[in-house]
Amino acid sequence: MSEASQTGFFISFEGSEGCGKSTQIRHLIESLRDAGHEPLLVREPGGTPIGEHIRHLLQHSPDNGAMTPEAELLLFAASRAQLVREKILPALAAARIVISDRFLDSTTVYQGVARKIPAATVESINRFAAGSRRPDVTFLLDLDCTEGFARLRERAHPDDKRDRMEEEPLAFYEAVRHGYLAAAQAHPDRIRVLDAAKPQAEIARAIRAELQKRSHVLFQGIRL
Amino acid sequence: MSEASQTGFFISFEGSEGCGKSTQIRHLIESLRDAGHEPLLVREPGGTPIGEHIRHLLQHSPDNGAMTPEAELLLFAASRAQLVREKILPALAAARIVISDRFLDSTTVYQGVARKIPAATVESINRFAAGSRRPDVTFLLDLDCTEGFARLRERAHPDDKRDRMEEEPLAFYEAVRHGYLAAAQAHPDRIRVLDAAKPQAEIARAIRAELQKRSHVLFQGIRL
Repeated sequence: MSEASQTGFFISFEGSEGCGKSTQIRHLIESLRDAGHEPLLVREPGGTPIGEHIRHLLQHSPDNGAMTPEAELLLFAASRAQLVREKILPALAAARIVISDRFLDSTTVYQGVARKIPAATVESINRFAAGSRRPDVTFLLDLDCTEGFARLRERAHPDDKRDRMEEEPLAFYEAVRHGYLAAAQAHPDRIRVLDAAKPQAEIARAIRAELQKRSHVLFQGIRL
Repeated sequence: MSEASQTGFFISFEGSEGCGKSTQIRHLIESLRDAGHEPLLVREPGGTPIGEHIRHLLQHSPDNGAMTPEAELLLFAASRAQLVREKILPALAAARIVISDRFLDSTTVYQGVARKIPAATVESINRFAAGSRRPDVTFLLDLDCTEGFARLRERAHPDDKRDRMEEEPLAFYEAVRHGYLAAAQAHPDRIRVLDAAKPQAEIARAIRAELQKRSHVLFQGIRL
């Protein structure tokens, strides 16, 4: 059994709407399968039956926009608390690779920076919800906000009902982008910033190379 | 306008299952209406559209009992954060009397004492969720656990699907009872303990007398 498969490996993806997270996650899962792994993909909020209920509530608030920032933060944290204990930790203990579409940096940035909840409060609730386990590596797909907006508009059907988060003004997304870049500066060893404006294949290659560097057995015998 | 109606007055009811909270709340609302007030009744978890969704999730977890204590605490806190800001504070600011069927002592006791989450953690999440406003008075209906259980069984239809909380063993309810009594000792000015084994009318009278003592205008001109 390889070193990676003995300890598990935890990867998270972060970035604002339209940054190409989903595409890169799909590419990575394919590459990992080619290398003989069966990664567990989870998402936040969500990833468990309880978490998916919370996700629905967060995205389609019955109060039509009246959700308080405090309730929002606590709902994200509740979803995470369940996800970590029900899925992520058991999968890592079983030596699997776990990929999370968003993890706790999202809360730091969206609720902390963009909703202006004090960083120490967000950090303390994050610590309670997620425990001490952090991703082994986090890929931040950084994208100019105007470009992210344009991508979102492109892929949206005109009849789509946009969800609560997507109704935020551009300034919110600018705060999110700067929040992410600040998080990357605060955790340079864990968070790897990637330019999301580059071609998909180039980003996918950079992700594989970074993973290979961090756990040389992940792509053992595979030509990157 | 009376003093009470200028400042609002916040009353919470606490106690374990079967203690008679709902009956006493009904009696109190009638008395307050007789005295010319229109109290706002809320409940926890719940009390807002978002909170009622959370209540449903807490009582009928889709994971069938797999909800982690951390997720449970955070969901209660999310419901409270929404309730305080959407309903309780605005009603108090509008000089109304607010009655809450459970409030933050429930979390201290159920998640802290009975689920064994450290008191300081529960306290800090409570503070974030509820802000600084505390009930002006809390009535704790204290009842022997065996008696509470018997009452619950009596009123339950044999076909009833019991909710998640009601499936807990007796030891859980004993921890809850002792947790409540400890909370009352910690906050003797705010929490008034009432013997829930006494006749309903006697308890209702004690509640009105206590309220009259704390805000002499609540029942102005009404014979208690």
